[in-house]
Amino acid sequence: MIIGVLGGGQLGRMLALAGYPLGLRFRFYDPEPEVCTDGLAERVRGAWDDAAALERFADGLDVVTYEFENVPAETVRILELAGCEVLPPQRALEVSQDRLIEKQFCNDHGVATAPFVPVDSESDLRAAVARLGLPAVLKTRRGGYDGKGQVVLRTSADIVTAWSELGGQPLILEGFVPFDRELSIVAARDRAGRVVCYPLVQNIHRDGILRLTFAPAPNVTAELQQSGEAAATRILAALEYVGVAAIELFERDGALLANEMAPRVHNSGHWTIDGAVTSQFENHIRAVAGLPLGSTELRGVSVMANIIGTLPDVAAVASVPGAHVHLYDKAPRPARKIGHITLNAPDPSTLAARLPELAAVVDLDPSDREGADRVLRHW
Amino acid sequence: MIIGVLGGGQLGRMLALAGYPLGLRFRFYDPEPEVCTDGLAERVRGAWDDAAALERFADGLDVVTYEFENVPAETVRILELAGCEVLPPQRALEVSQDRLIEKQFCNDHGVATAPFVPVDSESDLRAAVARLGLPAVLKTRRGGYDGKGQVVLRTSADIVTAWSELGGQPLILEGFVPFDRELSIVAARDRAGRVVCYPLVQNIHRDGILRLTFAPAPNVTAELQQSGEAAATRILAALEYVGVAAIELFERDGALLANEMAPRVHNSGHWTIDGAVTSQFENHIRAVAGLPLGSTELRGVSVMANIIGTLPDVAAVASVPGAHVHLYDKAPRPARKIGHITLNAPDPSTLAARLPELAAVVDLDPSDREGADRVLRHW
Repeated sequence: MIIGVLGGGQLGRMLALAGYPLGLRFRFYDPEPEVCTDGLAERVRGAWDDAAALERFADGLDVVTYEFENVPAETVRILELAGCEVLPPQRALEVSQDRLIEKQFCNDHGVATAPFVPVDSESDLRAAVARLGLPAVLKTRRGGYDGKGQVVLRTSADIVTAWSELGGQPLILEGFVPFDRELSIVAARDRAGRVVCYPLVQNIHRDGILRLTFAPAPNVTAELQQSGEAAATRILAALEYVGVAAIELFERDGALLANEMAPRVHNSGHWTIDGAVTSQFENHIRAVAGLPLGSTELRGVSVMANIIGTLPDVAAVASVPGAHVHLYDKAPRPARKIGHITLNAPDPSTLAARLPELAAVVDLDPSDREGADRVLRHW
Repeated sequence: MIIGVLGGGQLGRMLALAGYPLGLRFRFYDPEPEVCTDGLAERVRGAWDDAAALERFADGLDVVTYEFENVPAETVRILELAGCEVLPPQRALEVSQDRLIEKQFCNDHGVATAPFVPVDSESDLRAAVARLGLPAVLKTRRGGYDGKGQVVLRTSADIVTAWSELGGQPLILEGFVPFDRELSIVAARDRAGRVVCYPLVQNIHRDGILRLTFAPAPNVTAELQQSGEAAATRILAALEYVGVAAIELFERDGALLANEMAPRVHNSGHWTIDGAVTSQFENHIRAVAGLPLGSTELRGVSVMANIIGTLPDVAAVASVPGAHVHLYDKAPRPARKIGHITLNAPDPSTLAARLPELAAVVDLDPSDREGADRVLRHW
């Protein structure tokens, strides 16, 4: 079986590495001159609307999946016309590509979000601010990732600057949620409709970029885990989803609010390669390949640290017991995710003891360390 | 860093899959028209003595390693002339390619073996039988794997038939060891001379082919483990070895006898992908790439079952909790290893409970099951 993957970034790379042991082959599609699946799988290079290139890509594929949510509808249409099944289904892309539709979809399926108002003009923005109060976050409805395409409004004076920065495209104003912490849940749904969920994890972002994930999140009651799983299950069922998806959540006073959904494997699930019985990558591949899903059980506890901008001393990282290095073969560049490290240990106290060794070799901000210390105190 | 690998079989495939997360690139060399690293790494195709092809292969490589012990000395010479470092060192190939040299080398370094006598003529064979007694095993000194190139002699009438079958090439007669069980140890040595060992594992062979590996072997005393580690450490140090090696052992009355050594990752170490903190494949790559070795600690307990000849129902295997499928993308053919399954569980009783589920979908002989039951009773 040959699986086609739209996008040859690190997520595609890790999908292929998880799928090879299942005896599957991979073919990638990406317009960039160099991508990080080059060298470990074949690739067709072409623009997202290049029908001829997409048809070459489609030839002989059993199924097509993707590693990023901004796949154009036109790309999917061309591939389906060429006879390819594309999974997760198109509806998941439509919902997740537009923050307004996404939030409405969540609410429609009983999943709470921050309050939000669509904004298409400066006067809309003023009315939205009047309704939601400040602070609030103005975001583009489409595009935007890793903190791009959003502006925080703290006083009404910020309205003009926020509008001048983002105005002229469909926007959404979201009420600011004074959350206690950021969590996420990664779930997989197979072709038979069975859903499995990984434990809730706790995330630390800085400058809009994920820095650290703690798996499992500490102090998660059975009710909270169940609430996360119920939200994921409802959303995936409503989308007739096949594959892995992630939902970023805010926890406030013991309740969960959905922030956004990714119809793909997710950075906050990278720890599963080393810290779960079956990784999110393998479960995504199992789902789209029509295999039953694997166990999402934890293997010990894990901290995942993204490698951002510059390469650490790999030998130093590799010598920390339980540290697993994952590099994406990407050129270092400021604010670019070029790898991650998962530190795994059988129990929280062993992991806490090894974390300083890792922190010494990975570029963590004092605020990241402070955040990590807060999490560790609760493990 | 680009690592060259001689041989594109399943061991090469698993080396690449373990090395990609470290940010390394791979190039394979193999004379066969199709090998199972095709599609996931570049390959130069050429004969083992094709200097021009080997030089193309060598171009830009940082280090060359191999996945089989029968690499011709000429191949290594050509690569070294082309400026490549080849690891493990040539001496390891010389020793492991010849059963006589190998056994002498073991004995010279304080590692016991079965008694043995070189045989170059039928009269040598008669004298050797007189000295070692019967039963005994006549083997070719070079070549031979998975039980090929050997004949068991039970009565003196077998001398003529054994000679007619194998005579005309350098041979060795080995005294028959009435061993209690077959064990093996996988060890790694880095460039700084540090050695790490995995726990002793217990193996079940049938028709000369490994069927099952139990990790760890049950009933291993600290003394027995230490004795295995001491043997591996002495041999690797004497060879100035860099990389992973395996030693197959017989246990008899609590003592270990070395049977043979493989200067490469080994089938009895495949369970380490899913059942150890660092896999044998990653540790081999770490060693040759100059990185420190990773922890060989167990993660729970594992049984590895080879997939031989025919493909099992992958969906059925994938639905057994804790079963990890590893297929090599090889065409099924009788007696051919085309994949393996590692069944992993946190503890022996959980694993024992799941083993029948696996046995139901993998083609195990009644004798394999009996052997497995004997091992499980001791876990």
